[in-house]
Amino acid sequence: MITVLRLGHRIFRDQRISSHVFLVARAFGADKGIYTGEKDGSLEDSVARAVEQWGGQFRLIHSESWKREANFDGIKVHLTVYGMPFQDKMAEIRKRCKGRNLMVIVGGEKVRPEVYQAADWNVAVTSQPHSEVAALALFLHEMFEGRELGKDFKGAKLRVVPQERGKKVLRL
Amino acid sequence: MITVLRLGHRIFRDQRISSHVFLVARAFGADKGIYTGEKDGSLEDSVARAVEQWGGQFRLIHSESWKREANFDGIKVHLTVYGMPFQDKMAEIRKRCKGRNLMVIVGGEKVRPEVYQAADWNVAVTSQPHSEVAALALFLHEMFEGRELGKDFKGAKLRVVPQERGKKVLRL
Repeated sequence: MITVLRLGHRIFRDQRISSHVFLVARAFGADKGIYTGEKDGSLEDSVARAVEQWGGQFRLIHSESWKREANFDGIKVHLTVYGMPFQDKMAEIRKRCKGRNLMVIVGGEKVRPEVYQAADWNVAVTSQPHSEVAALALFLHEMFEGRELGKDFKGAKLRVVPQERGKKVLRL
Repeated sequence: MITVLRLGHRIFRDQRISSHVFLVARAFGADKGIYTGEKDGSLEDSVARAVEQWGGQFRLIHSESWKREANFDGIKVHLTVYGMPFQDKMAEIRKRCKGRNLMVIVGGEKVRPEVYQAADWNVAVTSQPHSEVAALALFLHEMFEGRELGKDFKGAKLRVVPQERGKKVLRL
């Protein structure tokens, strides 16, 4: 099972970014999302709506304590611009995760030193400033070695039928 | 040269998402960003500041007309959830782009049918709803086959020195 833990959500500033983080988590094969910081009903609703319409089992919960969540039976990978190049660590991470749960920790504005200590790996998706949304997508893409791109979402009410030009969506 | 064209920016709703789109564009090897929709000084400043501090030649401009920009000597790839699976098209796109300019078009809330017509390819990074930020990152990552992860940014004032735990940033 793969859990994405997003730290320090702020309703006003982060709503769309956190929503993208969790939609990416779902689309790229994670099972569960947890966020700390401000509890945000709109964020939860938008993710729940996506699951309701597009299928799968992804669920999102709020937590008061990242420490409690990080006290987790499995491997913890913290995505941070300050970490080691993720591409050099993926083979080892994939190997260590076999048959174990994985938690991917995605920071907010300011990440405390304890998070770096709590993580089994601190890895960077480039050492350039960009986006936790992109970092999470790249990490999961490499974690699953591209197999996530063909993932089937059970119970979907909507399904896109890929087109060269134009749009086609089936209602199931 | 790779240009990222972001359609229909709205200051209030899209500022952080568009900022992430262009930071990803820069970090993953694009040369230039163009956005249509509302002109946004803060967006331009935040991208310019990243370039000033972290190096490279990336620049961002506003345009009144996507049609004028899409009248472009090169290959145009439109990223859309309704398109064909990008992983099935990458080999062909890479081949066709050799020695040519590439424009990657990233939609906003509602993309007009003419955009699908103007593009050489309409491709989807999964057929699930998630994030244009993630879609762009994955596309560029596969376009460069991972070589973008080692990109050097000339003229940087700041550089991260990757660490197993903790943070180290050099001022150059």
